Formats: sequence, structure tokens, C-alpha cells
Amino acid sequence: MCGIFGISGHPEAAALTHLGLYSLQHRGQESAGIVAVKDGDVKAIRAMGLVSDQFSAERMRTLAGPVALGHTRYSTAGSSTIENAQPALVHFKGGHIALAHNGNLTNALDIRGQLEDDGSIFSSSADSEVIVHRLAKAKAEKPEEKLAEALVGIEGAYSLLVVIGDTLVAARDPLGWRPLVLGRLNGAYVFASETCALDIVGATVEREVKPGEIIAIGPDGSLRSLERGAATKLHRCVFEYVYFARPDSSVFGGSVDRARRALGRRLAQEHPAPGADLVFAVPDSSNSAALGFSEISGLPLELALIRNHYVGRTFIQPTQSGRDAKVKVKYNPVREILDGKKVVMVDDSIVRGTTTKGLVALIRAAGAKEVHMRVSSPPITGPCWYGIDTPDRDQLIAAKHSVEDIARLIGVDSLGYLSLDGMLGAVPGGPEGFCHACFSGQYPTQPPSVGPVRLKRA
Amino acid sequence: MCGIFGISGHPEAAALTHLGLYSLQHRGQESAGIVAVKDGDVKAIRAMGLVSDQFSAERMRTLAGPVALGHTRYSTAGSSTIENAQPALVHFKGGHIALAHNGNLTNALDIRGQLEDDGSIFSSSADSEVIVHRLAKAKAEKPEEKLAEALVGIEGAYSLLVVIGDTLVAARDPLGWRPLVLGRLNGAYVFASETCALDIVGATVEREVKPGEIIAIGPDGSLRSLERGAATKLHRCVFEYVYFARPDSSVFGGSVDRARRALGRRLAQEHPAPGADLVFAVPDSSNSAALGFSEISGLPLELALIRNHYVGRTFIQPTQSGRDAKVKVKYNPVREILDGKKVVMVDDSIVRGTTTKGLVALIRAAGAKEVHMRVSSPPITGPCWYGIDTPDRDQLIAAKHSVEDIARLIGVDSLGYLSLDGMLGAVPGGPEGFCHACFSGQYPTQPPSVGPVRLKRA
Amino acid sequence: MCGIFGISGHPEAAALTHLGLYSLQHRGQESAGIVAVKDGDVKAIRAMGLVSDQFSAERMRTLAGPVALGHTRYSTAGSSTIENAQPALVHFKGGHIALAHNGNLTNALDIRGQLEDDGSIFSSSADSEVIVHRLAKAKAEKPEEKLAEALVGIEGAYSLLVVIGDTLVAARDPLGWRPLVLGRLNGAYVFASETCALDIVGATVEREVKPGEIIAIGPDGSLRSLERGAATKLHRCVFEYVYFARPDSSVFGGSVDRARRALGRRLAQEHPAPGADLVFAVPDSSNSAALGFSEISGLPLELALIRNHYVGRTFIQPTQSGRDAKVKVKYNPVREILDGKKVVMVDDSIVRGTTTKGLVALIRAAGAKEVHMRVSSPPITGPCWYGIDTPDRDQLIAAKHSVEDIARLIGVDSLGYLSLDGMLGAVPGGPEGFCHACFSGQYPTQPPSVGPVRLKRA
Amino acid sequence: MCGIFGISGHPEAAALTHLGLYSLQHRGQESAGIVAVKDGDVKAIRAMGLVSDQFSAERMRTLAGPVALGHTRYSTAGSSTIENAQPALVHFKGGHIALAHNGNLTNALDIRGQLEDDGSIFSSSADSEVIVHRLAKAKAEKPEEKLAEALVGIEGAYSLLVVIGDTLVAARDPLGWRPLVLGRLNGAYVFASETCALDIVGATVEREVKPGEIIAIGPDGSLRSLERGAATKLHRCVFEYVYFARPDSSVFGGSVDRARRALGRRLAQEHPAPGADLVFAVPDSSNSAALGFSEISGLPLELALIRNHYVGRTFIQPTQSGRDAKVKVKYNPVREILDGKKVVMVDDSIVRGTTTKGLVALIRAAGAKEVHMRVSSPPITGPCWYGIDTPDRDQLIAAKHSVEDIARLIGVDSLGYLSLDGMLGAVPGGPEGFCHACFSGQYPTQPPSVGPVRLKRA
Repeated sequence: MCGIFGISGHPEAAALTHLGLYSLQHRGQESAGIVAVKDGDVKAIRAMGLVSDQFSAERMRTLAGPVALGHTRYSTAGSSTIENAQPALVHFKGGHIALAHNGNLTNALDIRGQLEDDGSIFSSSADSEVIVHRLAKAKAEKPEEKLAEALVGIEGAYSLLVVIGDTLVAARDPLGWRPLVLGRLNGAYVFASETCALDIVGATVEREVKPGEIIAIGPDGSLRSLERGAATKLHRCVFEYVYFARPDSSVFGGSVDRARRALGRRLAQEHPAPGADLVFAVPDSSNSAALGFSEISGLPLELALIRNHYVGRTFIQPTQSGRDAKVKVKYNPVREILDGKKVVMVDDSIVRGTTTKGLVALIRAAGAKEVHMRVSSPPITGPCWYGIDTPDRDQLIAAKHSVEDIARLIGVDSLGYLSLDGMLGAVPGGPEGFCHACFSGQYPTQPPSVGPVRLKRA
Repeated sequence: MCGIFGISGHPEAAALTHLGLYSLQHRGQESAGIVAVKDGDVKAIRAMGLVSDQFSAERMRTLAGPVALGHTRYSTAGSSTIENAQPALVHFKGGHIALAHNGNLTNALDIRGQLEDDGSIFSSSADSEVIVHRLAKAKAEKPEEKLAEALVGIEGAYSLLVVIGDTLVAARDPLGWRPLVLGRLNGAYVFASETCALDIVGATVEREVKPGEIIAIGPDGSLRSLERGAATKLHRCVFEYVYFARPDSSVFGGSVDRARRALGRRLAQEHPAPGADLVFAVPDSSNSAALGFSEISGLPLELALIRNHYVGRTFIQPTQSGRDAKVKVKYNPVREILDGKKVVMVDDSIVRGTTTKGLVALIRAAGAKEVHMRVSSPPITGPCWYGIDTPDRDQLIAAKHSVEDIARLIGVDSLGYLSLDGMLGAVPGGPEGFCHACFSGQYPTQPPSVGPVRLKRA
Repeated sequence: MCGIFGISGHPEAAALTHLGLYSLQHRGQESAGIVAVKDGDVKAIRAMGLVSDQFSAERMRTLAGPVALGHTRYSTAGSSTIENAQPALVHFKGGHIALAHNGNLTNALDIRGQLEDDGSIFSSSADSEVIVHRLAKAKAEKPEEKLAEALVGIEGAYSLLVVIGDTLVAARDPLGWRPLVLGRLNGAYVFASETCALDIVGATVEREVKPGEIIAIGPDGSLRSLERGAATKLHRCVFEYVYFARPDSSVFGGSVDRARRALGRRLAQEHPAPGADLVFAVPDSSNSAALGFSEISGLPLELALIRNHYVGRTFIQPTQSGRDAKVKVKYNPVREILDGKKVVMVDDSIVRGTTTKGLVALIRAAGAKEVHMRVSSPPITGPCWYGIDTPDRDQLIAAKHSVEDIARLIGVDSLGYLSLDGMLGAVPGGPEGFCHACFSGQYPTQPPSVGPVRLKRA
Repeated sequence: MCGIFGISGHPEAAALTHLGLYSLQHRGQESAGIVAVKDGDVKAIRAMGLVSDQFSAERMRTLAGPVALGHTRYSTAGSSTIENAQPALVHFKGGHIALAHNGNLTNALDIRGQLEDDGSIFSSSADSEVIVHRLAKAKAEKPEEKLAEALVGIEGAYSLLVVIGDTLVAARDPLGWRPLVLGRLNGAYVFASETCALDIVGATVEREVKPGEIIAIGPDGSLRSLERGAATKLHRCVFEYVYFARPDSSVFGGSVDRARRALGRRLAQEHPAPGADLVFAVPDSSNSAALGFSEISGLPLELALIRNHYVGRTFIQPTQSGRDAKVKVKYNPVREILDGKKVVMVDDSIVRGTTTKGLVALIRAAGAKEVHMRVSSPPITGPCWYGIDTPDRDQLIAAKHSVEDIARLIGVDSLGYLSLDGMLGAVPGGPEGFCHACFSGQYPTQPPSVGPVRLKRA
């Protein structure tokens, strides 16, 4: 779960990258970084925390040149360290390599083992470091061919932005798991995880980087495409539509807002709530789905749950007594809407179930007579191996419980999940060509190679 | 524009105040502070910035005792200093006084002049400091009577929380400008600007503090009310309903969400948009009004504008070229919804017009064929003298321009403001008893006494 | 224990004050502050910590104008808060008052009580705040007369720098406890606690501010002196010569280095160490005295103890086991010098005895055969009431123990303290006119009025 | 110019390393770091700045286990980045490697080129990174043999501490440039650059690590020594005695204080100052030499120059006008000592001459009639290639000017440098076996391989 942004051919490359990262902050709030290249001279800044807090005007001023790339990284337990912040930046025989990666390589540890056997050293626990090593060892001449060579045998999900010398290279894995889009801003080329980042810099959307494709932007403004061939069956992450991407973005060529609206409509068809008085969303990610539900069901949409956006990522329970403050500090129900009503609560997904349970309790305490939960995706029964930070199987409520049990555990009067077919039929470009492994258990690869976490930084 | 919270009779008074301030953060993000009293010993922490960033567990641990009060303060240019952060805390003959103030005193400088003539010294530029001086000089014995004595002759808007010794005292000005509500949490009494802060600590709403009322909570848990008599005609701030309060709160006894929904409905009646394809809100404060507009107009509600909540208060334009990045970094339109459509954009108010103009440009760039703006309050033609941080008259677009001119300036195809009568008829408890001076020019007091800003801290 | 600096008539007044505070840092490391005045507009910065850490170029740029004053404050337990940092800055009828104080008022709480009876409020626990209140109430017209009026009835030690409007006023108490010197820098007048602060800004020493004198420097560069009359018998703090002032300074008109050299010579006469092999100082404050001892005794001076200047004020014992790390991290003996030797260790004073005991243990562990301690001042038997931060009587080793007992407790073979007469005979301008209360118990005033510490800030 | 510390076999290894770094802070103030190993699990903290400021108790708590090593690094222009902070920590086939290095490898870039040819990547610009790569590729089994293998062909100065797995390995280059000492603390083994770091943790000095020797301390407490053979002619850095090491340390088996005393005595013999009134040191590094000069010359030692230890490393000139504030803020002369006197100023060395020139001006301004400068080492005519941060040749005053010219340029009446033979004859273990290249131009190796600085971090 990361966001990447790159630009070549613009005199304010680093500043625009900075701006682009603002729009990709939802894809990762743990750390962020920017690398810029000027006349073969490369500089980087990386920091823990949000883009808005860490990248002062003074630090930004150190980044000059027409080529830049940036990265926002999600917080995953245990490896939240500055060493794992990206873009990676190293020096090798041919100069420098900077790399930003969104996705997860399933055979990274195997490749790492091979590299270690050859005497390579690793300074982070990030899977991306193996690509950097491979790039440095690649025999090919051209940057895009170097990258193609480096990626041979690497499995899993990756959308990549790489700077080798003065060339910006973009790549997507052949199964197309993670999105990556190409845009233009006057003479410059821009790449970003989502189109909302093109919007903020004023770039126009050209097209998706194709699954399997590698695109190189030379210092002379030339674009060279190298197609390694997409898989016969794509595995684009359906969860990007369900929850992860921003609603104002297009990913995989389809509008996220339209996708969610369609999911909500389909949800209302599959699981209507006859007799209910109103419908509301768990804000903000489920707003579009709730609108779709309202549209089909005819139930009025209400803003029954208010989200407090001032709660930082580091909320610490201030009191001993209040067990449920974590949910309460983030969400507050509107009693005047809920009191005495039979209500439908729409959410995009249920992961552990703890937040949902807290929300239902709040809704009931605000006077709701009946709470009917509707979820605009199927039960999550397995972890994601391809870059979404879902917890282990044993923490997923739907991995161990039936829908009836879940309804009881979270305390709702009824619970309806959208079906797998319903979801795949609703998203743009469906029903084929999507990864739904976390819902269906149909993983298209071996599980990620794992090993002891061997490198830690306090 | 501030938020206040106080509690008496709870062993975790400071921690609950901390929690309450999270819910009042929208009323002020410049600085925050908490004072706690234990056995006559009083301690305070105050800091610039957000509650979530500044009040570490370690700092909070220093605040013990059953009585606490807190404050969040809005940033106004020129006086954004730690000296002006509240609660104020001083020592006087009878012990200590801590004070948190929401509102604006219109004759503060006159009173300050009188006090200075008597040799008083001032260490901040806050108007609240005159109340502290008056309290220290009051002859009355009981805390609530001290406060009544101190407030004689003081004009303007105030909702106050004061700790004198072990007694927590709450007061509201006789015209009732700013809200203040009383709640109960087991045996403890809780006061807050809005009910959402009672919700977060699990307190139940008892009632409003009445205009003119002073309530003292003694260390023994006793409640003493002293009614100074409300004005015959109240001047509750209607802007609390229109924009300022949180939609999940009740203020002045009415639901903010219900008020905004009614404003949106009335707006649709006064200014329909026949021929339009859809309606959308400028998120988040206008969501309820847009829903109301949709309900009456029959136009489908869309989420056509996405707000980026990761943009901090300190956004600095990263590029030289991008003039409009400030609006773009905060809002992004959804092209798939807007392209080729005739759209209605609902906002709660237009102040300077610059943000609106930027938004309209974004909406048009996303392909909207027609943009019809609807505003759920009347044109703002004058500054607020009573605690809302509106700019000077010459910066208010509606103070100098007709509605037609404004429509042209911001670039919309049509523009409709809710009428004054429409607004007052829609809000709970209306149409009488509200201050609408910024819309109507009917100021119920003399203008605030002003003088040179004489005390600065770098 | 504080340092003060002020300047009038220089375009870079604040920058020079900043520089001056570097030289007065030894008089107080808890907090520092600077106030500058330009055309009646006054600005202040204050911060906890060292001058070198806190006053960035950016913050300094906010301080303009030809008049400035600064303060460094010592850390005393319990009141180490930003509220107590100086200079104080308040607004009153006549404009603004900024005040920096070195010393301690013995009847501050009495005066404070009188002021509180009149309704005054206090925002710090500093004794200096009473002078600010008195100044604001003074009837006199001229700044120097205001200060004279404000100081009537105030007892104890004070060297003061005050800015009222554009006038810089300096004052010293009639008994002359704390030093204060007047210098010139081109057309400007400069005041400082010690001459080393004049040196750093390139000012020449004019003369001491006389005991009881008040000097005002007008915005026109005029100097007006108002002599309130010194006491018939001065009480200049002899400890400034013994330990507190910097050796490159002159205080009370005499060289500190020369004073300490003379104390060391006298010590060698009173308490020779026949049979010893060498003499060394506890660096750095005792270096001069040890040189004097060496000169008279004929014992070679050695640098047997090395001080680590990188140890900050916040050293936290890193290990559980090492009990004595606090002394060891600051001082290390040189084995090659000490091994097998009979040594004389010269220190300027012994307060609690704990550090001395640790040092003696280190010296012995380094192989010293005999340790003879010589102290260049008499036993400290009482606290200072006049501004030196000595601990309470019950923590002073010499308040409870005979010299023989102390020798045994700290583990030395012999111990010699300089006699009271010896000390007073050795310092410049002695033997009359010095306060030696902490040595002799002859306090020239009543004890400081005390009361509960009533105002705290976490 | 760095300090290194390592310990194996103590339950508080990291805490003792922390303490040890306090004593090695003079060897490097730019950055510091500590690595600790527990049961094969390795953790590191690294930070810019001083040990006392950066390593909080909270951060230290993350470092557990019986093996730890630490590093303090000197600030050199252009590479003052966290990436270059040590200890380095990487993962390789066999587990982890942590490395702390004092010295400078003269053929690092050649080795780096070879490694890059094999596809290795580099993440810092530090020369030490080549050793880490070599270690990861070493075929040998035992840690000490791995290190021996890794060091084959590496030229230049190094004292190294390495942790491979649970084994702590120490090594010194065969010419013995940098010091490294072995100590014992109960059952644990301790290594440090200087003995003062053993003193602070309470360890006893065992012996020097021999030039060329590699010592491994196994997790079972075993010590294995591997002697690669010292060079026939050692090149221990004489500047460690002259200036760099702490006077309370022993390096190369000799007392630094005794060495400096001897240098001062010899200086007085070579360059007496007949007719002078007194001698004084430039504190603190020249104190011992000045004592030696006083001893032989019979001139009384005075403390004529006071150093301000509160001046941080980041002093920024506060005023526009004062050109010489940088020297003045650090040193202040004592007029009472200097006025009218013919004085001898002893310093350990003159590098650029700018500070000396400023000092002489201060001394003269304080009234000195004649200033005779004596330097306890020869003129520095070339840069150090082996780890001391001397500037380039063209900035060394003695590289371009005769002694007579230098005397004139710095403004002294006479100037005497200790001769090369005098210096080598005075230091312990001399005159053979020392590197004096910066004085004599006799460099025992080729110049360091250089190249463009290719990796930067803002």
C-alpha cells in the first residue's frame, strides 16, 4: 500500500512531485520521500510522517533538476523505520539508481537469498531492495532493458518508477495488480499511481501503463515503450475500486466513484432492507456506495455518522476508563437522525470487525431501533499477498465466522455482503481480469517467501 | 471562534477534557490548553497547534484532580502567540483563577483602559484578560457572585468557563451569542461548547446554559444557578447553524444537521435549478444542505468534489508556476460525474470569493457545461463583531458587489443565495432570537472598541 | 543567579544583546530571553535552554530597534517554566514595561500580598513581578523616577534593567549585592552583569552602576543618574569572586581572576601541605586559585583532572549498575600524574559534598597515595537569601559537620578551608563591604518572606 | 576523526557503550550511533548531533543484549548526512554485520570500483562501506578470518570494531595509525579508541590492540588473536599526542598529558622567550604544553584566555558589523593579566591561521605589549590522508608561507615552532614509528584515490 509519482522534463520536477504526493497520501502515511536529478547529480530527502509536515520549503530547495520521483509508504507493524522509506537511492557502477515501488514481490526472499549467496548486502527489510541489486548487476545497456533484465523471474505485484542516470523508467507487472497511469504536462511526462495526482499538477491523462509494459523517458524527452507481454489473464486488484483508491481517481481506466456507486446499487439489489427508514455511510470511503444503495432502494440518504478529521495517526487513549474512545474520537453519530429509526449502515468492507462493532454500539446508543449492515464487497477470508496491508487470516473476522455469526458478533439486526459475482460484475471492465484472492482464496501465485525478520532499526 | 470544555467531579477530569477538546478542534486549531485543579493546586499546559500533536501522555500526567477546563483557539492573523493561548491562569488574593472564553467582548478596550488607569498590567492582547482582572478585584464572596460582579458592564459575546479555587463556574452572555451546554457524566458535571464534546466523553445532555445564566459547580458536587436575566431579544449566532458547529452537535437546543438540511430544502425552494442534471456539495460543511437541496429539487446528489484531509494548516505552495494549487491541493473534482453536465454546487457561504472562484474553475475544467451555485445563507456584507473570524468589510465580496456581479466574478452561470427570512425561518427556534448582523448589518451593539496593537511577542 | 544585559542607542541592539548573553550563559542556563523596542513597538522572544540552541537567526530577525535587553536564568527546582523566563513584558497605562532582574527580593511576598489586596493578579511565581506591578502604578513621570518610586520598601538584592517606552533604566540595590557595569560602544550605552559581556560586543568599561543608583538612558542618548544613596555598609556578594563570575570579568571593580589567585595564595599560607608532591584544581572554576596555591607553596601545578565539556545539563545515568557515573562522566583523573603521589586538590567551595566525595574516590582510584583538600573559601553553613542558588541548610555538609567530620566523610587525608578573614582580606576592595552571610550567618536582612508555591505550570 | 567503542559479555552492553561515547565525543561531534545484539537479533540507533542530546532513555531501551558497539563521527563538509553516520549495519548471507571505523582508507575508491564492477551497490559515500561489502563476500568461516580476508589489499588507516553474528571483532591496520585499546570489565571485554572511555565505564586497561592484529571475542567470552604482522616501521599518528586525544587518555601506550608536557618543555628549550613576563595557553588543548613551557622557562603560567564552553557547534554570527565575533564568543582575554605585559602564548598547532590571528588581536587589545607565539608542533605543510580532518594544502598557512611571514600575518612579535626532531623526541615511544606526513611531507602511501562525489542526500 504505497503511492508513487514521477516526472521527467519539467524545470520544477521536485516541487510537482511534492504536490503529487499530497494527492497520494491516502496510499501511505508512514513515510514519504522525493529524489531529484540534475545533470547527473542526484539528491534525496526522506522522512517519517506526512508530506505536509516533513518537506519544508528549505529542504525542498535542495532538490533541483528536470527529473524527480516520489513515494508515500503505508505503516506496517514492525518495519516502520526510516531505512525502509523510499525512494531507495544507491550508487553503482553505472551511476545512481533511485526506485519507488508499489506492490509486493512474492518471491523477494528467494531472490534475496540468491543475491546473498553472491555476496550482496542488504540495508533494509524492504522487498524492493532486490530489484535495486538486480538493476546494478544487469548487463543490458539501456535503462529500460536493464529494468526488464532485472525483473526476470521476479513474481508478485509491482508498479515501479525508477531513475537510472537521467532516464525515468516506469514498469507494471504482467498481471497488472497495481495501477499506474501516464500523463502529460506541457512537454513533460508524468507517472502516478492514480489520476488524482495528475489532476493536482495540472497534467492530462494519456493512458495506463500497460500490464507488463516498461516505459522509459529519456533526458531528451523521448518515450520508449518495451512490452514484455501482459499475462493472458490479468489480476488487477479489485480492492482498489472497493476501498483503496481515491473516488476522484481513475484506476485501470475506470472511475473509482462510478465503480463504488455501482457496487452500492448492486448491493441494494442483492440485499435490500425492506422496512428500513434511511441509509447512511461509514464516511468517507463508503459515501459513494451508500449513494448507490439509496438510489436503488429508495431509502433517503442521511449523514448519520460524522468523522473527525483532526484525529492524527497517533491517537493515544487519554483515559483509563473509556474503552471505546478510539472509535468515538473518530466517529460520532447524529442522534436526531437515528433516534427511533430502522437504519441501514453501508460500509465498503469489514476486516477485523472491531471498529464495526464499536460503530454499531454508537449507532444503537444514539437511539436506532434496528441496524442493518450492508457491505459493498464480499467477506474477506484471506490476507492480501500483493500489497494491501490486511492482517493475518486469524484476525479476519470472516475467515473464522459465518455471516450469521458475524452479524451476531458485531451486533446488527441483519447483515448483507455483496456477492463475489456481484462485485466483479459491477466494477468497470469486469467481471474478468481482477484479483479477488482475499475474498475468494484464489491466489494466482505461491505464497510470499517468508523468513525471520532479520534487520531491525530502533 | 473557540471551543471550551470543563468538568467537575470526575477523577480523570483532565483526561476527559483532553478527549473533549478533540471534538472541539474544528472551533479552533491555533492553540489549545488544559488546566486542572487538585486540592487547591492548579496546573496548566498550553501549546500552539492541534490537540493530537501537543498533549503527550507525559505532559497530561502532570494534570491531576477532579476539576479541569480546556480551550481550543482559532488562528487570527497577528496574535497567533502562546501568550494568547487559553485557558488563562493567574494568581490573586483569593488563590487562582483559570478562564476559558469563547466569543468577543465589544468594549474590552474601554474596560482595559479603566483597569490600566487603576494601575493594572496586561500580559496578553486577548480581550479575555479584562475579565480575569475584574474577577481578581471583585468583592463578592462566592465564585458565581464574583463572576457576576466581574461581568457588570461588559458587553459583547461570551460563553465562559472559569475555575476559582475548586469551583467550576460557567456563564453565558445575556444575548446568548455563543452556545454552551451542560451535561452529566455519572456524578460529574460537564460543560461544552457543543454536544459532540459531551458525546465523546459519554456524558448525557442536561440542558443549555441559559442566556445570562451563571452556574457554579462546587467541590461538593452542588450546582448553584444565578440568573442575571436574559435579554428580551436573544442574539444567538445563526452562523453556528449555517457553518461553524459540527453537524453531529446540538447547539441552542437544535440539531445542526437538521438545521442545515432545512436550509438546503429552503434554498431549493427559493432558488431551484430547473434543467440541471445533478447537485453536489462543497465538502464537508455543506453536505447536509446539499442533501436537503437534492430532496426538494429531485436532482440526484453526487460526490463530485473530493476533499483531501491530509492537507495540514501550513500548506506552502511548492511551485512557482501553479497559482491555484492551494484550492487544488484541498479539492479535486470527479470528471466522470461532471463531464458534460449542468451542475448545481451548494456551499454554506461565500466569504472572499477566492476559494469559490477556484472551485468553479476546477468544476468547469472537469467538463461541467453549466455551473449553478446555490448558497445556503445570505450574502455576507459585514464582519462579525462577536467571535467569528470574518475578514474586514473590504475583503467581503458581497459587501462591494451585487449578486449579479458576484456570479460574474466567480464565473457561474447562475447564483442564488438563501434569503435572510428563508434562513431565519429554517433554523431551529427561528425566526426570532438570532444575530444576523453579518448578513443584515443589524448590529445590536456598538462596534468593538479598537486601539493600536500594543503588545507583541515574536 | 541570573545574567542581565541591556543596550540603548545601537541599530543592532538585539543582535548585540544576543552576543552579550553568550558571555552571561554561566550565570543561568535554564532559560533566556531578549526584548527589543523600535518606535514604541516592543517585541520579545523567550525560550527554555541555552542561547546557542534557541535563538535562531529567523527568530532574531523579528527583534528590531535601537533599545534591547536580555536575561539568562538559572534552573531552580520547581519553577523551571517558560512563565518565569525573563525579561518580563507587560502593557500598562503608559505603554509597555520590560524587566530583567538579577538577585532575590526578600520581602517580595509581603509586597505581593499588598498588591493582591488591591486586586492585582500575578501570572508567574517570580519575585520580579512585584516590581512590574509597582512600576505600572507609579505616579512619577520620568522612567527613572517611576523605578525609584516602585523600589521604595523593596528589600533584598537586585540589579535591574528595565525598558519603559524608549528609555532603558538600570538600577542596583543600595547594599550593592549583585554587580552591574556600565559601558560604551561608540555612541551607545551598554549595561551588563559582568565586563566579559562588554568585551564580547566590543564595548569599553565606563564604571560600575553604583549601589543605590538608578541610571536612565533616553532615546536621545542622554544619561540621567539618580542616586538614592548607597547603604553605609555595602553587602557585595563575595561569592561572585569565589565562584560565580567568570575569571575574565571584573565585578565590583576588581578582577575575578586576580581575586581567585589571591584567594589561592592566602589558602596556601593558611593551609600549606608540606610533603605533598603536586597541586591540581577541580576545573575550571578553581584553576586560578590552584595557580595561586602553587605559587606560594612551590608545589608544581598539574592538570590531574580533565573535565568533559560535552556533558549537557540533562545527563541521564545510562546504566543501572554505575552509581558514580554522574561524576565520572564529567571528570576523569589522569593516572600518570596521580599514581603514587601525595596530592593537593584545590576547589573553590564544598556545598553538599557529594561531588567532592566522588572526585576524591576517583583520585584515589587513579593511584594517589594521599589526598589533601584545600578550599579557597570558608565552610558554607547557611543558604543564600540574595540570589545564589544554594540548597537548604540541611543539605549543606558544613552546616551539620565539623571540618574533621567533613574530611572523614569525603575521604581526604587533610582538609583546609580558607578562613573568613583570609577570604575577605584577599578579595579586591576587602575586607569591608561584602556579604558573607552564607559563611558567617550574618544576614543583613530578615529572611525572605515565604509562602506556599501557588502557581504552577506543567 | 572518529571515536569507536565496543563491548562483549556485559548485560548492559548498550548502556555502557552510550557512556563510553560520552568520553569519545571530542573525536567526533557530527553524528553518533550504537548497535546492540541480542540472541542474533541486532538493533541500531543513529543520529546527527551529540550523544547527550540524541540518545534518550526511551531510544536506549530498544537496545538489548551482551554485545554492542558505538561510534562518534566528525563533521566534514559535504557529507554531513545521516546515511554516513556509523555504525553501518547490513544483512548478508551469514546474518548481519555492524561496523565502526576510525581512520581513512587511501584506496577505498579503487576497491569500490572493483566491487561496482561486480555489481555491488553503495548507499553511502563513506569509505568504510567497502569493508562491509568485502566482509559479506569473504569465504572464510570464522569472523576474525572473514575480517582478515576482507582487509587484504586495503590500504590506509583503520581501527575497526565489527560485530558479525554474536562475535565482536577488533582490528588495527599494520602501520598502527589510529589507536585502539583493549580493556576488561569483570568478565567482559571492552575496546575503545582511548583509555578515557575505559575509565568512564570502570574497565581496566589490558593492552593496545597491536598494529596488524585482529582480535575476536566470541559469545562464550573466548578471546582469539590473529596477528597479520605489523609493518616493520609503524606510522602511529603523532597528532594524537599533539592535539587530538584527550589528555587523560593513554594512546599508543603513552600518556597524552605527559606527552604534551614534554612537548612544552622541549618547545621552551628550542624557543625560549627571554624577557617575557608570563606564559599562557590557548585553552584547553594547549594547557599541558603551556605548563611544560612554564616549567622550563621559569615564566609564571597565567590563565590569560578564558574559553566559553557554552558556545555550540552551530554559532551563527548575530551581527552584521562584528567581523570577529566567532573568535570573541569562544575566547576572552583577561585584561588584568595581560595589560602592559610581554606575553608568551602557547598553542598546539596553527592550521589556517585565522583563529590565531583573531586571538592575537584580542590579546593585543587587552593591553599586551609584546606577543610571542610558541607552537608545540612543527608547521603543518600538508593535509592528512589518514583520518584527521585537516583542510586542503592551499588553506594551510604554513604550506605557503615562511615562519617569518606567518609571524607577520598573524601579528606576533616572535614565532617559534617546535622542530620535527624535537616533537618526535619528546613523545612517548619516539622518535621512531610515527607518522608525521602533515609536517614533513613524508607520506608512506599513495594519495587517496579520489573521484566525483556521486551520492548526496539533502
